[in-house]
Amino acid sequence: MKTRKFEKKNYVKELVALMRSTLPEKELAKRIDNYHYNDIAEALTCLTENERKHIYRILGAKHVAEIFTYIDDIEKYFNELTLEKAVKVISLMDSDDAVDLIESLDENKREKILKHLDENLKEDVQKIMSYSEDEIGSRITTNYICIHNHLTIGEATKELLKQAGDNDNISTIYVVDDNEKYFGAIDLKDMILARKDDKLIEIISQSYPYLLEHDLIDECMDKIVEYSEDSIPVLKITGEIVGVITSDDIVELVDDEMGEDYAKLGGLTAEEDLKEPVIESSKKRLPWLIILLFLGMAVSSVVGMFESVVAVLPIVICFQSLVLDMAGNVGTQSLAVTIRVLMDEQLTGKQKLTLLVKEVRVGLLNGSILGIMSLAFLGIYIHVFKHYAWGSAFLISACVGVSLLVAMVISSIVGTAIPMIFHKIKIDPAVASGPLITTVNDLVAVVTYYGLALIFLINIFNLV
Amino acid sequence: MKTRKFEKKNYVKELVALMRSTLPEKELAKRIDNYHYNDIAEALTCLTENERKHIYRILGAKHVAEIFTYIDDIEKYFNELTLEKAVKVISLMDSDDAVDLIESLDENKREKILKHLDENLKEDVQKIMSYSEDEIGSRITTNYICIHNHLTIGEATKELLKQAGDNDNISTIYVVDDNEKYFGAIDLKDMILARKDDKLIEIISQSYPYLLEHDLIDECMDKIVEYSEDSIPVLKITGEIVGVITSDDIVELVDDEMGEDYAKLGGLTAEEDLKEPVIESSKKRLPWLIILLFLGMAVSSVVGMFESVVAVLPIVICFQSLVLDMAGNVGTQSLAVTIRVLMDEQLTGKQKLTLLVKEVRVGLLNGSILGIMSLAFLGIYIHVFKHYAWGSAFLISACVGVSLLVAMVISSIVGTAIPMIFHKIKIDPAVASGPLITTVNDLVAVVTYYGLALIFLINIFNLV
Repeated sequence: MKTRKFEKKNYVKELVALMRSTLPEKELAKRIDNYHYNDIAEALTCLTENERKHIYRILGAKHVAEIFTYIDDIEKYFNELTLEKAVKVISLMDSDDAVDLIESLDENKREKILKHLDENLKEDVQKIMSYSEDEIGSRITTNYICIHNHLTIGEATKELLKQAGDNDNISTIYVVDDNEKYFGAIDLKDMILARKDDKLIEIISQSYPYLLEHDLIDECMDKIVEYSEDSIPVLKITGEIVGVITSDDIVELVDDEMGEDYAKLGGLTAEEDLKEPVIESSKKRLPWLIILLFLGMAVSSVVGMFESVVAVLPIVICFQSLVLDMAGNVGTQSLAVTIRVLMDEQLTGKQKLTLLVKEVRVGLLNGSILGIMSLAFLGIYIHVFKHYAWGSAFLISACVGVSLLVAMVISSIVGTAIPMIFHKIKIDPAVASGPLITTVNDLVAVVTYYGLALIFLINIFNLV
Repeated sequence: MKTRKFEKKNYVKELVALMRSTLPEKELAKRIDNYHYNDIAEALTCLTENERKHIYRILGAKHVAEIFTYIDDIEKYFNELTLEKAVKVISLMDSDDAVDLIESLDENKREKILKHLDENLKEDVQKIMSYSEDEIGSRITTNYICIHNHLTIGEATKELLKQAGDNDNISTIYVVDDNEKYFGAIDLKDMILARKDDKLIEIISQSYPYLLEHDLIDECMDKIVEYSEDSIPVLKITGEIVGVITSDDIVELVDDEMGEDYAKLGGLTAEEDLKEPVIESSKKRLPWLIILLFLGMAVSSVVGMFESVVAVLPIVICFQSLVLDMAGNVGTQSLAVTIRVLMDEQLTGKQKLTLLVKEVRVGLLNGSILGIMSLAFLGIYIHVFKHYAWGSAFLISACVGVSLLVAMVISSIVGTAIPMIFHKIKIDPAVASGPLITTVNDLVAVVTYYGLALIFLINIFNLV
């Protein structure tokens, strides 16, 4: 037997070469089948359309269905199939994957496919498509194993073997009662390890978690992740199982949530897609920008109050952006830390206070360090490039340094307290905090900086 | 049989009441056992220390071990166990959970526990602890099922049943050759459905994906998520299996990555913990702040060049923060969209260009809308509150509006191009892009705004 090396192998490259080879079809199909569907999917995207059509034909509908679930912009490849094969492929997919695919097709093609699907699948697909996008029902698959609670272990095992052929998600077996209402779940492992004369009821977990079909994804994400099960059943309010959420879906959900949060932190109202028209993207971004514009105008009018300071001592405007930006940066850091903590844990009032105190202390420490650095560097800069005397130069840089320190401490407080308040009144802190914090910090920084300049530089030291 | 209602049930509340009841111990243990470990864990955290100690005693080590894997700040509860029970509990955990727990203990307790562990587990734990935190090896569990490739289906099934008792992760069975090198994987479903006289080799997937122990988590995350398997084996470079990554770990990894990205976008070098000392938090935040301080100084010196404009026309400083902030906001939006796209997909050069063009068009559209709004509102504001004539007021507000448009378009380009360049040269765009983009945008906005003010307001229209 030859020794294998466990370096990274490029399965995709191997596959592309294989797919382009002139091997007899049967041999080719068998060889391709040795690879992982994900790699086959990636290899397919490297071929030309004609080469792909050849491979679709060789592989058969079941394999094509599996491969297609690993492709991202699937509709392009799906449209390369004949209608007959397309229908077959969809019929062989898990129902949630089928729905994703059908939803990505244009209306014309969608109608055609739906017309040809068998009644059972059509019903499942239409059911899943009927949920709104933020309901957990829109993410379910109907491929799961379900048995009755009055079976013996032997009968249950037989039923499992019968249903396993058509269903991929077998690691948890769902149990219903005589009225077809959800009764509990069995870990496949317990089923395998059970003896023939054990009672089925003893291995059924009757407090296994479940979701309701109209539950909002946002609200049940934490619960889903916490239970860390391979799959969770989704019920009607009357107790019938409508489908299950699998661990695959859970990873996808977490990933999607991440995208949403990213988008929110960036000031978008929803996640964007690469292929989305400009108008759509513009609409998602404009609401925040308009709010920010008006908040910016408010800041402008406060800056306007200090016009007289600038008129007599124009050098102070050089450092306005520095003080404002640094206050903003510190506020963003506190915001990021606070939001993350709020997402992860249920904080008591005391813990919230601890967090706030900690943020203030971090702000004080970093503010002092940066304040002293500004004092030193800017003093030299003002003397050398702006030709002020050493004394005046350091008075001005001291004013910047002190403003930095004060603004950073206040920004830390604002960046921690505002998301907590939003969280408390049940507004998503990731959406609403950003602009409000920026504005409050800008205002604080402007007033501190120009205020200090007015008092110290102009009124006390008469630097004009 | 009574009908069950499928409203939300508060299992935790039920459990707390149950745990505080005066039921006989055996009955109590049996009743508690009916609930999900996650709910039991949550209920335990609601009890007093003495109540908990009572429950630990009743439940036995195996159950306590399972429950503890669902608790967040586990060390507190773990320290409530007697040393003997603590060792037993750790011995019964999956090795990755055991490592997490041991790492959270203080040194003294850790030594004590390690001394009492049995040799096999101690070896596993020390192995896992030896990996650095960013290596995939640090996340493995050694609880998996492994068989030899020369077995018959019957022998393999027997081996599976034998090993299943001690191992939770049974949905994929790993296969090694006679030299104990990784050979492939079997889907449990295929094993269940196989007939006695099938050949084992036919159900082994020899191209099942694997990772190497020193692979960096950052770099293999995408691969792990894409393959969407229940577990993936982790090998030594020589081919021996050292452990597996389970779907549970995958969800956790995705969640952690999210935290990291959140932290990076907020300008922290790493994710922070609630209980971390101030000095540690300060250290994580200071590097970016210092970089930003110096970049801010660079912007300041550019603003300084326009001191003369401000000296003769102080009103322009009112809107500096507005133009700079809006440019920054647009840049952040483009950045968030671009980073998300880069994370999710492999873009071709042509797709990158498409994205860039789209961002420019969105910038142009939104910039025009906001520019016109500024023109209108600020013109009125300047006339009413600053007592400029209508003509001059609208000249100034037009200057702000045009600057906004120009700055927003350029910010869109910068916010899209810079993360792409960082991605290309393999620097994490989420870390490095933010400050650079802010600075470039600030510079562009300052030069555009004051430049336009100098040319139009002062040189052409002599507004002074």
